[in-house]
Amino acid sequence: MNVILLSGGSGQRLWPLSNDIRSKQFIKMLTNEKGEVESMLTRVYRQITAVDGGAGITIATGKKQVSVIKNQLGDRVKVCVEPMRRDTFPAICLAAAHLRDVQGAEEDSAVVVCPVDPYVEDSYFEALQELAGLAETGGANLYLLGMEPTYPSEKYGYVIPESSQRLSRVKTFKEKPDSAAAENYIAQGALWNGGVFAFRLGFLLDRARELIGFTDYHDLYRRYGELEKISFDYAVAEREREICVLRYGGGWKDLGTWNTFSEAMNGNTLGRAVLGGNCEDTHVVNELNIPILCMGCRHMVIAASGDGILVSDKEQSSHIKPYVEQMEQQVMYAEKSWGSFTVLDVQEDSMTIKVALLPGHGLHYHSHEHRDEVWTVMSGRGRAVIDGQERRVKPGDVISMPAGCRHTIFAESELKLIEVQLGEDITVEDKRKHRL
Amino acid sequence: MNVILLSGGSGQRLWPLSNDIRSKQFIKMLTNEKGEVESMLTRVYRQITAVDGGAGITIATGKKQVSVIKNQLGDRVKVCVEPMRRDTFPAICLAAAHLRDVQGAEEDSAVVVCPVDPYVEDSYFEALQELAGLAETGGANLYLLGMEPTYPSEKYGYVIPESSQRLSRVKTFKEKPDSAAAENYIAQGALWNGGVFAFRLGFLLDRARELIGFTDYHDLYRRYGELEKISFDYAVAEREREICVLRYGGGWKDLGTWNTFSEAMNGNTLGRAVLGGNCEDTHVVNELNIPILCMGCRHMVIAASGDGILVSDKEQSSHIKPYVEQMEQQVMYAEKSWGSFTVLDVQEDSMTIKVALLPGHGLHYHSHEHRDEVWTVMSGRGRAVIDGQERRVKPGDVISMPAGCRHTIFAESELKLIEVQLGEDITVEDKRKHRL
Repeated sequence: MNVILLSGGSGQRLWPLSNDIRSKQFIKMLTNEKGEVESMLTRVYRQITAVDGGAGITIATGKKQVSVIKNQLGDRVKVCVEPMRRDTFPAICLAAAHLRDVQGAEEDSAVVVCPVDPYVEDSYFEALQELAGLAETGGANLYLLGMEPTYPSEKYGYVIPESSQRLSRVKTFKEKPDSAAAENYIAQGALWNGGVFAFRLGFLLDRARELIGFTDYHDLYRRYGELEKISFDYAVAEREREICVLRYGGGWKDLGTWNTFSEAMNGNTLGRAVLGGNCEDTHVVNELNIPILCMGCRHMVIAASGDGILVSDKEQSSHIKPYVEQMEQQVMYAEKSWGSFTVLDVQEDSMTIKVALLPGHGLHYHSHEHRDEVWTVMSGRGRAVIDGQERRVKPGDVISMPAGCRHTIFAESELKLIEVQLGEDITVEDKRKHRL
Repeated sequence: MNVILLSGGSGQRLWPLSNDIRSKQFIKMLTNEKGEVESMLTRVYRQITAVDGGAGITIATGKKQVSVIKNQLGDRVKVCVEPMRRDTFPAICLAAAHLRDVQGAEEDSAVVVCPVDPYVEDSYFEALQELAGLAETGGANLYLLGMEPTYPSEKYGYVIPESSQRLSRVKTFKEKPDSAAAENYIAQGALWNGGVFAFRLGFLLDRARELIGFTDYHDLYRRYGELEKISFDYAVAEREREICVLRYGGGWKDLGTWNTFSEAMNGNTLGRAVLGGNCEDTHVVNELNIPILCMGCRHMVIAASGDGILVSDKEQSSHIKPYVEQMEQQVMYAEKSWGSFTVLDVQEDSMTIKVALLPGHGLHYHSHEHRDEVWTVMSGRGRAVIDGQERRVKPGDVISMPAGCRHTIFAESELKLIEVQLGEDITVEDKRKHRL
């Protein structure tokens, strides 16, 4: 099957582990069966591949997330990059066009669209596979997965099926309701709409051409900025008459707040943390390399990263957004396609950064107008190019790059270095890329 | 008056702001009238000098604290350094001998002994001055300050005076009691013994020679290791018959736990911190340069430094000691006589440190056997000596020092640098000092 994983979202609700660059699906705080820590993205990718080894996965996302996706899944992952954010309908159209025109998929083949961030069991992906099979042979135009509700949530849209059978035609869709309306829907047999759909590629492309009008992927990409922001639900699902819903009763969670996210943790702590002195129902995630000691904490979540430290009552943690919006934000840690960086120290006229390069990767060849830089190699081997001159580098090597100097470094084995930036005007904008 | 300030103590109860090197009296979290943040040490020093501009202050302390005392008070402060820790009686004897034999004080002059860490109003120092006057002319051998108790504390020893007058002879001393005994003592008019005494220098030196037997300061210093660990209370005060107590009713607090320490804070936060979402009776001290966001915290104290992060219920915070003892401790920040250092990053075979040198100060001339080091100067000017060769340094300069290389750096203006240490065996012990 073809799977389009929708990767969007902003990073405010799970601050300080999420930020502008690292949305919640990239936070490594879930533990797999081998005891390895993984993100929602790597978990979902692993789960799909386990159920269908031949699945063709395309991640539909914006420019900001490409680096971290490649960092976590490797360079071979297929990513369909929106030039700017539009809603889910344009994003799915672009990914569908990418499937046909770039990847060569057949119009008869089934496509499953699924958000990247549900926290689910493997049975969920078996249901996706069933949904893909229905799209190919079931006769309707659109199949969606309806989650059996466990409480009258106000956070989800609802689907009301015509019957209570496992597979049923859809009677109607309902927007996110208040609690009373939700109870009423559930009494009518309603299911949660989790944004999971399957269709034949040709069906979606026909709808897309009707509504947008474009020739191929490249044409659509070029004109993407002109497209209306509209959701797939609104543009397609709610207008479709040949639509069925498949009932899904397995575990399905939206880990959107610290309160729900901490429930998915394996144990109460991740990273250096000690729960002492009568702590109760308290979770700690610590990405810093200093210990956290909690004493007498009750129903709390504590999260620490290079961006900041959150100490919150679990219930209160859902109200975090306005506080994070007001906070002066400097991204202190980011995963890039070539590795990662961590800001270690910020002074008035200098900044110190730890850079870790993945084997086989390098920085862009670039220069800065307003700052000098000094690299001290801590570990690993590779080669640097400084103003066109190539040299090999090893631990202990020091490279000084005055403003204007063009420079890059490639890692042969994992390479870590300390970069000291010096200048009165240090900004991320002061970076000019060059051809090597 | 001569004042001997006793500076001892370990750093566990106010972890992570205190550590092996930085005892509680050195933590900068009190705010003076000018709005400047100061430590207990600088506060007490300032208060004594305000009451008696001519006071001769000698700080009696151990080797570990000399650097931080000089960092906070400057090089001119008089410090009497015990070669190893003994109890208060040997420490006071050594400081008394230092006063006479090194500083040339008269045996007739009054000496006040006072711990460095009470949190008090200026009236306390007026009482010390009165105590000094009594020691010179009052006729008794020993005068002590008795604090009027505010509750039946089990933390302090008690003094029972003969009368309820402001100045009275002492009837007897009582060890730290249980709560019931404390109530009984208070009913008899008992006062807290805060360890504050005044005497003529000659009186104490006579007692010291009787009990220890020594010729002068240098003799006592040499034999310090042989001395019995014994408190001044036990060795002198409780055996003295010519002893009076002066009643003191002003504010007097022992800021020994986070609970009491936070009460002395001016406001609820120090450093980058936001109290949001219905926080109540919560204090935050943040020495890190990343923000702390608290939501729905009640009766809590949150403290963060390069050594770690404490998140504690205020009541529970008094039970911190065993947890801190178990914690793997690496000092991440230390104030030294020449400035300070901060550990920024620790890797398997490297460590990155920020070094800040005070103007006019330099490091020891030293070398390391098992590690290379690289300095990148961030700000300030000065000169470095590398294997005997002197060179001037400015921001952006890089100095590489392979293992075995002798090196030092002197700051002319405040000088900050990043030091990358590289080697398989990086330890504080690997340091050899050389003559320049």
